Amino acid sequence: MPMEIVKTVRMGLLNDFYGPLLTLKQKHCIQLYYEADLSLAETAEKFGSSRQAVYDLLKRTERLLEEYESKLGLLAKYQKRQTRYAALIELAKGLENEKEFRALVAELERIETSDI
Amino acid sequence: MPMEIVKTVRMGLLNDFYGPLLTLKQKHCIQLYYEADLSLAETAEKFGSSRQAVYDLLKRTERLLEEYESKLGLLAKYQKRQTRYAALIELAKGLENEKEFRALVAELERIETSDI
Repeated sequence: MPMEIVKTVRMGLLNDFYGPLLTLKQKHCIQLYYEADLSLAETAEKFGSSRQAVYDLLKRTERLLEEYESKLGLLAKYQKRQTRYAALIELAKGLENEKEFRALVAELERIETSDI
Repeated sequence: MPMEIVKTVRMGLLNDFYGPLLTLKQKHCIQLYYEADLSLAETAEKFGSSRQAVYDLLKRTERLLEEYESKLGLLAKYQKRQTRYAALIELAKGLENEKEFRALVAELERIETSDI
C-alpha cells in the first residue's frame, strides 16, 4: 500500500480510539482531512482559516494521537486481538457448538467498537 | 464489599489503565495511597508535603482517572471481555481441541495486561 494510504487509515483508526480525548476542533480536522479525504485547502475553507493554520493543527493532532498510542497502545492491542478472534473462529469450524463460539466472538467484536 | 475497598480496587485498576497518561507525581500518589495502602499522613510524609496538599492531589487525580474512563471506557471494556474469555473457556471444556482454545484465550489475556 502507498505510504499515504497507510497513514490515512492509521489516522482514521487512531481517531476512532483516541477521538474522545481530542478537542472538537482537533477531531473535526482529522475527520475532514483523513476520513472525508478533503484537501488541505478544502479543510481550511471549512474551518474558515488558512492552509498553514490547518496544516499546523493537523500536524499537532497527528503527534498527539501518536503520543497517546505510544502510551496506551490501544490500536496495537486491538490489532493483536483481531488475529486471535479470527483464530478462534477458525478453531471452532465444524464443531458442534460452533454457533456459540461465533456468538461469543461476535460479542467480543462488539465490545471493540462500542462507544463504551 | 465495603465501599472503601471497592474504591481502592477501582483506583488501582484505573491507574493500571490510564497510568501512562498521568504525571509521575499523580501516579505515585495513587500507588502509595491506594495500592500500597499508606495513610494520608504517611503519603504526605513520602512526598514531603502537607496532608491537605496530598488530599487535593489525590482528589484531582481520582477525578482525572474517572474522566478518562468516562471517555475511553478501558476498564469497562476490559471487564466485559473478561466475562467472554471465561465463557469461551467454559464452552471449550471437554472438546478435542480444548488446549488450543485455552492457549488462544491465554494469549488474549496477555494482550490485556501487556504494557503494549
